[in-house]
Amino acid sequence: MSIRTVVWNEFVHEQENAVVQSVYPDGIHNTIAAALANDETISVSTATLDQPEHGLPQSRLDETDVLLWWGHKAHGAVSDEIVDRVQQRVNEGMGLIILHSGHFSKIFKRMMGTPCSLRWREAGERERLWVINPSHPITQGIEKAIEIPNSEMYGEPFLVPEPLETVFVSWFEGGEVFRSGLTYQRGAGRIFYFEPGHETYPIYHQPDIQTVLRNAVRWAYNPAAPWKDVAKAPNVPISEAREKLEKKGPSLHKAGEAGYR
Amino acid sequence: MSIRTVVWNEFVHEQENAVVQSVYPDGIHNTIAAALANDETISVSTATLDQPEHGLPQSRLDETDVLLWWGHKAHGAVSDEIVDRVQQRVNEGMGLIILHSGHFSKIFKRMMGTPCSLRWREAGERERLWVINPSHPITQGIEKAIEIPNSEMYGEPFLVPEPLETVFVSWFEGGEVFRSGLTYQRGAGRIFYFEPGHETYPIYHQPDIQTVLRNAVRWAYNPAAPWKDVAKAPNVPISEAREKLEKKGPSLHKAGEAGYR
Amino acid sequence: MSIRTVVWNEFVHEQENAVVQSVYPDGIHNTIAAALANDETISVSTATLDQPEHGLPQSRLDETDVLLWWGHKAHGAVSDEIVDRVQQRVNEGMGLIILHSGHFSKIFKRMMGTPCSLRWREAGERERLWVINPSHPITQGIEKAIEIPNSEMYGEPFLVPEPLETVFVSWFEGGEVFRSGLTYQRGAGRIFYFEPGHETYPIYHQPDIQTVLRNAVRWAYNPAAPWKDVAKAPNVPISEAREKLEKKGPSLHKAGEAGYR
Amino acid sequence: MSIRTVVWNEFVHEQENAVVQSVYPDGIHNTIAAALANDETISVSTATLDQPEHGLPQSRLDETDVLLWWGHKAHGAVSDEIVDRVQQRVNEGMGLIILHSGHFSKIFKRMMGTPCSLRWREAGERERLWVINPSHPITQGIEKAIEIPNSEMYGEPFLVPEPLETVFVSWFEGGEVFRSGLTYQRGAGRIFYFEPGHETYPIYHQPDIQTVLRNAVRWAYNPAAPWKDVAKAPNVPISEAREKLEKKGPSLHKAGEAGYR
Repeated sequence: MSIRTVVWNEFVHEQENAVVQSVYPDGIHNTIAAALANDETISVSTATLDQPEHGLPQSRLDETDVLLWWGHKAHGAVSDEIVDRVQQRVNEGMGLIILHSGHFSKIFKRMMGTPCSLRWREAGERERLWVINPSHPITQGIEKAIEIPNSEMYGEPFLVPEPLETVFVSWFEGGEVFRSGLTYQRGAGRIFYFEPGHETYPIYHQPDIQTVLRNAVRWAYNPAAPWKDVAKAPNVPISEAREKLEKKGPSLHKAGEAGYR
Repeated sequence: MSIRTVVWNEFVHEQENAVVQSVYPDGIHNTIAAALANDETISVSTATLDQPEHGLPQSRLDETDVLLWWGHKAHGAVSDEIVDRVQQRVNEGMGLIILHSGHFSKIFKRMMGTPCSLRWREAGERERLWVINPSHPITQGIEKAIEIPNSEMYGEPFLVPEPLETVFVSWFEGGEVFRSGLTYQRGAGRIFYFEPGHETYPIYHQPDIQTVLRNAVRWAYNPAAPWKDVAKAPNVPISEAREKLEKKGPSLHKAGEAGYR
Repeated sequence: MSIRTVVWNEFVHEQENAVVQSVYPDGIHNTIAAALANDETISVSTATLDQPEHGLPQSRLDETDVLLWWGHKAHGAVSDEIVDRVQQRVNEGMGLIILHSGHFSKIFKRMMGTPCSLRWREAGERERLWVINPSHPITQGIEKAIEIPNSEMYGEPFLVPEPLETVFVSWFEGGEVFRSGLTYQRGAGRIFYFEPGHETYPIYHQPDIQTVLRNAVRWAYNPAAPWKDVAKAPNVPISEAREKLEKKGPSLHKAGEAGYR
Repeated sequence: MSIRTVVWNEFVHEQENAVVQSVYPDGIHNTIAAALANDETISVSTATLDQPEHGLPQSRLDETDVLLWWGHKAHGAVSDEIVDRVQQRVNEGMGLIILHSGHFSKIFKRMMGTPCSLRWREAGERERLWVINPSHPITQGIEKAIEIPNSEMYGEPFLVPEPLETVFVSWFEGGEVFRSGLTYQRGAGRIFYFEPGHETYPIYHQPDIQTVLRNAVRWAYNPAAPWKDVAKAPNVPISEAREKLEKKGPSLHKAGEAGYR
């Protein structure tokens, strides 16, 4: 068994900004992919915004178990059609890991239904992610907290639904807090939001951050067969009712007719 | 104080289908509105699909505390722009009550992030909604269960996120079950999904169903001031940090610059 | 209508420790009670450990809508019988507000099922409680955050179940974070845990802390009739089944017999 | 790896009641154990009420990954000391699966904090457990629903906290519904309540019920190291604060002193 994982990156700042380029010369996606490749149960590849269909044709998504998403400057450039497709796959069972500024990605806002807004400050301040549940699969191998010497501040309120589990909460030097690791279940898919990862600091090079990413991929993987018809609303004919039933009263639909959508 | 409530109805079947017309000669919206008007804390009006902006211009939504939504055949005819607007208002604090076939409305799918699909059968069978929490505000005045002599069957799995609270679960004569009353919190807004209400049966004329609707409006009302900037992600300047802070490390943004979206 | 509220305090440190006595000369309970009395919808009284039945005879609990609980040194001195009684009343619908070191009270551990443990440090450091949901009834009237100049540090992991809602998260000067305002529903009762309140600092004299306490009492109040038989498991005789039913197969119980417990 | 699993049974009715004896001649525990043993990742043994320490000495619990619990008539005979011990182990990370009438066991009521009451009828009626989430690990291998020809009715309201996930909901011939498969996380431990299993019917002999039990054991297993000090509340000395800190203000505790409990 191997968890087929795609690391998606908009891959813009690494090509436009000298600072970011110096930190991630091959792009954030390749740094993360290399970190995931250290786990032999993970089979990893990458995709970027500039590829045809953003590197996410239906055929590829159909063979993806877990998708990681990093975006910041170009959220608006992601096609709605691709977002529809990713959303459907998450509901079918694909895991989704949203990284850092991906909080404002179309796909995360779609899955949450809320604005996913927050407060922010780029001061290179110290961040400390406290483990809330040391027995959670995502926090295995992590001590009490992860220290990030230079980080972008993300502060509450973070406009997301109450999560399934609060896995990390962050402390910031400038005085803010943030729920920096949150899990969700949507349809058959598991979602993990993980806050660290500002592109001007070498955060994805940290071994403990890489451990969390590997853990998160394994956690988000749903081995159940994809739920292909998750969005269908099939009619159950009277003849197939589990209890014997006879039609009563007036009807809108004729027998065998599809429902409205 | 008065809870400014709008009952929205696509108002199609009442005009096209003789059976529905005989049950709801003035439209489902007017039957529900009359039921709500029995509560002196509720100030009610209606809106329909065929009105300009579907009867939901921004100025009206801004003065709406709770919106009820009934749609079935014409979900696709609802403009995305109006859906954006309603979603924003829910996140700002407007209550939203989704009725019956509204499970497939654009606005409900938007708020949930999941397909909101289910199984169905139109056999006029018996439905019984069991009260799961008799002490919940929405179930006050309801005995152990609500009996509906003729109902459309909605069956599990119902593809919605795990709710805040399961308020009702339904039993169907043909052998199915359904979580027929579910609450959610999204942003500052409260959402209630209530399953009964097939248009060919006089369900909204039942006194106990009307009691639930009145209770739900009061429950969904959030008296807090609207959270107008709920979708904004403001920068917190270094000079306004609660703890004294000096800028360290490299930056992407210049001072005072807006973040990307 | 008036919310009948009892502030319970073990009232030990105020009589034994000069520092605490100087901060709360009349006891923490009387300071809190005076703060609650500013809200005309709240009718407040107090109870202490040293009173007969700790001031909580059944007849008084039966007429209590919301109970606040402050304890620290004498958790073990609280009688199990009284704890049983309070637990039953919460499940019947009485609101329960657990303050500060009450995290280790018998009643809170009973309601949670978990150890309710945490990390702590008494350094008089700065604490800042961030509002996570500014539209929640408990945070009305509170700005973005509550500042406490001198506080005891409570740090994660906090061993409680995932809450209904995370209302506050705290930042501490020494580098920790804590989920400092959490809501729960148990049976018909609402529970709020509120972390600030170390007895050597004048925290309950702060106006914003008092605002939270008043808000929390109103939030925790359940106007539904008490659910007196919440712990009963009544038999539903075959003759009273909602669907016609005939007995089939073997039985353990004779007709009308009570179930085992 | 092997999941060390103990099936606990009070083992009373099988020795006292001829009907039950005919269905489970070796006791319910041995029927369940045999079913679990079909999964090679599960290493199973049994324990009963009449054994010393109910078969659950500390040394054995320390080597138990998942505990299944069946009890009905003799809940009151289970020693509080053993219940304390099991509760601590669940909080440390041991999985707990509560079966049928175990809803009223001391350990389940302890973990939930609520009365765990319900309605019931012993009529041998038909039960159908609908799968709510077909992609959940516990429902793998199960079709849309599990049919039980003769079952005891358990009806709502079921007095437990809102679950992490609703996995099954049951339909009963006599007209009731019940949330028959519910998951919880408490401390490091996962809990699954599974409703079928009345002792006068051969329910645990059904292959699909056995599939659910095996799935549930694998789901409940937490491979993380036991969280032995989960109930401890350690002091974090000022000298070990992550941020430089100096003591301010008055104190209750002397340096190094243990906290109160």
